Amino acid sequence: MIKVGIVGGTGYTGVELLRLLAQHPQAELRAITSRKEAGSAVSAMFPGLRRHVDLKFTEPGAERLRGCDVVFFATPNGVAMGEARAVLDGGARVIDLSADFRIRDVAEWERWYKTKHAAPELVREAVYGLCEVNRERIRGARLVANPGCYPTAVQLGFLPLVEAGVVDLDHLIADAKSGVSGAGRKAELQLSFAEVSDNFSAYNVSGHRHWPEIRQGLAQAARREVGLVFVPHLTPIVRGIHATLYARITRELDFQALYQERYAREPFVDVLPAGSHPDTRSVRAANMCRLALHRPPQASGKSDMLVVLSVIDNLVKGAAGQAVQNMNLMFGLAETTGLEQPAVVP
Amino acid sequence: MIKVGIVGGTGYTGVELLRLLAQHPQAELRAITSRKEAGSAVSAMFPGLRRHVDLKFTEPGAERLRGCDVVFFATPNGVAMGEARAVLDGGARVIDLSADFRIRDVAEWERWYKTKHAAPELVREAVYGLCEVNRERIRGARLVANPGCYPTAVQLGFLPLVEAGVVDLDHLIADAKSGVSGAGRKAELQLSFAEVSDNFSAYNVSGHRHWPEIRQGLAQAARREVGLVFVPHLTPIVRGIHATLYARITRELDFQALYQERYAREPFVDVLPAGSHPDTRSVRAANMCRLALHRPPQASGKSDMLVVLSVIDNLVKGAAGQAVQNMNLMFGLAETTGLEQPAVVP
Amino acid sequence: MIKVGIVGGTGYTGVELLRLLAQHPQAELRAITSRKEAGSAVSAMFPGLRRHVDLKFTEPGAERLRGCDVVFFATPNGVAMGEARAVLDGGARVIDLSADFRIRDVAEWERWYKTKHAAPELVREAVYGLCEVNRERIRGARLVANPGCYPTAVQLGFLPLVEAGVVDLDHLIADAKSGVSGAGRKAELQLSFAEVSDNFSAYNVSGHRHWPEIRQGLAQAARREVGLVFVPHLTPIVRGIHATLYARITRELDFQALYQERYAREPFVDVLPAGSHPDTRSVRAANMCRLALHRPPQASGKSDMLVVLSVIDNLVKGAAGQAVQNMNLMFGLAETTGLEQPAVVP
Amino acid sequence: MIKVGIVGGTGYTGVELLRLLAQHPQAELRAITSRKEAGSAVSAMFPGLRRHVDLKFTEPGAERLRGCDVVFFATPNGVAMGEARAVLDGGARVIDLSADFRIRDVAEWERWYKTKHAAPELVREAVYGLCEVNRERIRGARLVANPGCYPTAVQLGFLPLVEAGVVDLDHLIADAKSGVSGAGRKAELQLSFAEVSDNFSAYNVSGHRHWPEIRQGLAQAARREVGLVFVPHLTPIVRGIHATLYARITRELDFQALYQERYAREPFVDVLPAGSHPDTRSVRAANMCRLALHRPPQASGKSDMLVVLSVIDNLVKGAAGQAVQNMNLMFGLAETTGLEQPAVVP
Repeated sequence: MIKVGIVGGTGYTGVELLRLLAQHPQAELRAITSRKEAGSAVSAMFPGLRRHVDLKFTEPGAERLRGCDVVFFATPNGVAMGEARAVLDGGARVIDLSADFRIRDVAEWERWYKTKHAAPELVREAVYGLCEVNRERIRGARLVANPGCYPTAVQLGFLPLVEAGVVDLDHLIADAKSGVSGAGRKAELQLSFAEVSDNFSAYNVSGHRHWPEIRQGLAQAARREVGLVFVPHLTPIVRGIHATLYARITRELDFQALYQERYAREPFVDVLPAGSHPDTRSVRAANMCRLALHRPPQASGKSDMLVVLSVIDNLVKGAAGQAVQNMNLMFGLAETTGLEQPAVVP
Repeated sequence: MIKVGIVGGTGYTGVELLRLLAQHPQAELRAITSRKEAGSAVSAMFPGLRRHVDLKFTEPGAERLRGCDVVFFATPNGVAMGEARAVLDGGARVIDLSADFRIRDVAEWERWYKTKHAAPELVREAVYGLCEVNRERIRGARLVANPGCYPTAVQLGFLPLVEAGVVDLDHLIADAKSGVSGAGRKAELQLSFAEVSDNFSAYNVSGHRHWPEIRQGLAQAARREVGLVFVPHLTPIVRGIHATLYARITRELDFQALYQERYAREPFVDVLPAGSHPDTRSVRAANMCRLALHRPPQASGKSDMLVVLSVIDNLVKGAAGQAVQNMNLMFGLAETTGLEQPAVVP
Repeated sequence: MIKVGIVGGTGYTGVELLRLLAQHPQAELRAITSRKEAGSAVSAMFPGLRRHVDLKFTEPGAERLRGCDVVFFATPNGVAMGEARAVLDGGARVIDLSADFRIRDVAEWERWYKTKHAAPELVREAVYGLCEVNRERIRGARLVANPGCYPTAVQLGFLPLVEAGVVDLDHLIADAKSGVSGAGRKAELQLSFAEVSDNFSAYNVSGHRHWPEIRQGLAQAARREVGLVFVPHLTPIVRGIHATLYARITRELDFQALYQERYAREPFVDVLPAGSHPDTRSVRAANMCRLALHRPPQASGKSDMLVVLSVIDNLVKGAAGQAVQNMNLMFGLAETTGLEQPAVVP
Repeated sequence: MIKVGIVGGTGYTGVELLRLLAQHPQAELRAITSRKEAGSAVSAMFPGLRRHVDLKFTEPGAERLRGCDVVFFATPNGVAMGEARAVLDGGARVIDLSADFRIRDVAEWERWYKTKHAAPELVREAVYGLCEVNRERIRGARLVANPGCYPTAVQLGFLPLVEAGVVDLDHLIADAKSGVSGAGRKAELQLSFAEVSDNFSAYNVSGHRHWPEIRQGLAQAARREVGLVFVPHLTPIVRGIHATLYARITRELDFQALYQERYAREPFVDVLPAGSHPDTRSVRAANMCRLALHRPPQASGKSDMLVVLSVIDNLVKGAAGQAVQNMNLMFGLAETTGLEQPAVVP
């Protein structure tokens, strides 16, 4: 059994980790920390976990996590960079669900996250945990930077095109729609039901923190810089991301075959028949990304645009599920262990 | 008082017309027809109209509409083209909220609507009722083709760019999200709450009937053909369209000023400060289109994409409200008569 | 024109007042105060009011409200009791949408609102603004305590029975369901979309502040104390209250006739045909209460329970609309002035 | 491995059965029938089941189900009564998720379901599958009538009181709120998103088919007839039932202890601490009923009403999950096998 600790388990990615780990046959939850909730039972805060999680929240601190094989940070940005070192020194491996170790260019990270980075040397060590790209490096990693939700959906959607170099890499467009849980478990007016429900809007069009993360991943795949317009929207659903991706084709080929081959051996990427319209609920509560390709009408005698639809559950393949997938790789388990629940539909 | 008749008042655009006309100081509702509901009170079907609409539905037929100054067709596609002639001959003017007279190329219409057109000569006579483009011609029109909901949001969003000829007209992209009322008042599984709620998806990416309508309008403004990728999505809200529009700039200028000047005298188009994120509820139940412009980050040292956000209430500015706006123009009233209610927020 | 001031216009009842007053032909908005937003335009906070409300928020203080004929307090509980005196002394009349003056028993108020009351003498002067009960006293009132949302729906539903004394007054039950806007415009985790959406629960079953307010009104109608179990629930809708009321019949009579007669001359209470199921959207954005009566099956040969269904829009008939109705009465206008918009459906 | 067949797997209870059986370690799905979808892949209709269910729908008919150890009927009411006999004769046991075998009084069933019953002799044989009541009889049953969703929530909520005989059994009240999936996977206008969303209403107050089923269960527990007012409501959520139960106390005792003792050994009934407010999402996608007790304020010096809150997921403990629980009992497995997933929150 893998002994697991969680730092900061009171957010949505934290409780989702708890849900998944409670069903994982090889993981044993040993400790979960929360400064604010220390001493209270996890299941008092999350009654859905009654009879599944018996732990109480404990004070943070590396000593609480001693003896753990792996520690998940499900903390706000800026926490893991200060605490990961002690945990690693204590002998545990670390999977960080926050953004602290995702951007390799520390100066770029500091621009977007508006803080000085506390552990640049760990950024160099960290492996970006997009399993479909870095599988082998993840197996040996001590510190994994779990990808963001938008970056997971957008990168998996664009990767085959970018790796093959068959589209205009200066003008990629990602029009992405996210459910509200993606913003975290927070008391904020703009997230309140009466503001969000029966309403739809874009946000952060002038710049979102996931933009540099996506560009970094695509640039690595392309081996050159890429131009990307990324427009996030808030849609009144709880879970789910739907990314609608636009690329201008520079070389025609069988794109459906390209995608099917690229993901043929991936347990958690599902290429649907051409012309499908994956909906977010088809991955609700499941560790899965579903993709579909389209060649929409454009003008008489002209059609050089490809549209890719990509859906994930932001809390699963976009956060906690991918984190468990990383853990499975790091500990030599079958990659799908504990992650095979079908989507909850309807 | 303008004497008003409505054909087919049992759908969402019909009941919305009733709501608006009940508040219109110069309109008097004389007749409303529905084959299926003939004899029953309008307010029995729509209790929200109790004490506002006393009429009963009557059998269809031009004689029921005799004496009306204007007749609105709020019917499914394919009805108005068969019945408008008799109504016009009876002396009334016609505003058709369906798609029957929107596309000037009859063959193109027949391809998309999969029916033979019953009144091509009326297509030639009809004026496309986008007031911000055809105001003068609408004043004198006998037959107005009220624009579709997506076409209203997308055209108003792109028009200043297209008229000015400052973007790549071969690669316009409209990523549009619609509330469910846009699909009409229908018993269809894919519209049911348990299918749509907490879910998000694209649909008809391979071709939507509003695509040729949008292209026709933009081409007229551009005086050349335009290439447009149009991807509609269903978002779980009742009312509202949010169109996110992408255009590649070919000539730099002050786009904010361009939009403000283009719409300076428009009562129902509101250009927000640059960088705003209009939400659909800011136009809920209001006859208004709100627009905002963005220049998102794209890549180091490169930025040639403009993003326009456009929101309307699909049932008001996208249907019944715009129809009343057309009526006001046709009958020499102030264009805003009966249409000045603020949005319902929250 | 009635010169109107609003204290605390940044909440949902405040913005709803603005929406209604913008359409009111006899009201002129002169000032709106907000300490936090002083100096910024109302329409910057509420873009739906662009082109309808030109005012800026100003600092609070009676001098800002000088010259107003009426001042609405749309403030959190505990504010109006401290400020109303100065406003009244300045010559304006006051309509308080908060709970400060609703409960005549000051000690009872202090128990439920956990504060010492700052103006007990104004409690004695205040008239409870349920127009259907206190119409004549409201006309002459200087200070009106606008009823709470639940109390409006529940009292209007029970009043005919209680006045007639035909049910067991010790065991009334009100099972009420409210939309989320009823909790106000607040940054609270338990109101956030990801907590409330696709979820349903009761709350405050052990005691809700509206319970004494309802009991006070019913006791006055009954001329004796009443026993009431009141169970509020949160339902994932934005606007609307649905109260399901249960009473054990002690004297049989034609209840449908009783209700129709009681409310025959009420412009804003609508008794539906027996057996109807009013839905909350049938009053959405409208100043209306709709009621329906049922005698459900109970057991073989036994049936002594009456069920009353009562719906209102909590922000309109349950708050801002009723406040305007009170204003109309206080200033000798037709009671329906500015309040005749039909419900927004769908 | 238990060989499982499903008749009519295209509704919501059918697809939920598929989701649960796909995770059941002792069940092997052998056949799933649907006249309409015969020949098409299950996962084409439900993409969320891709990689989990490989079967195609087959034509109905007992021969398709030969070799199955158990057959679930997830069909509309009126189908199982005609087909169960042949399946039983073929040697399989039957769990019927429809209402065909739930009501022991065939005349009563025929009144409510408006059809002649096709197999009264099987009604006599059938065991009502509320495990918490009939556990031992279910183990030996050949034919189990799986309870309705409302009846499960309401009976589990009332049972301890009724068995103990400590409340007024002539005036029980169940005010129940259901998510929309409870109405089934149907193309009906009144279930469409634009009708249901942002809306709340009661329905069938004059009589719902679950009323006799609940009364039958409570009467059996009470060993006398009971009077029950049952008012169902539709709340805009996908899954979940919240029953708010009212009973007048005739004998005071420690009700919290009563409930805790009654359900102490039940794996799928969870009595929360007194004063809790269980929400429907705390059981979303989980086979669990959560209960909480309240003594709300009523009047000065008087308090004889008990309020019980009961929540289930209508598709799991209210349908497919309970059906699998019955299967586990019938085949001698641990009752919790395959049913231990925590709730999906948020």
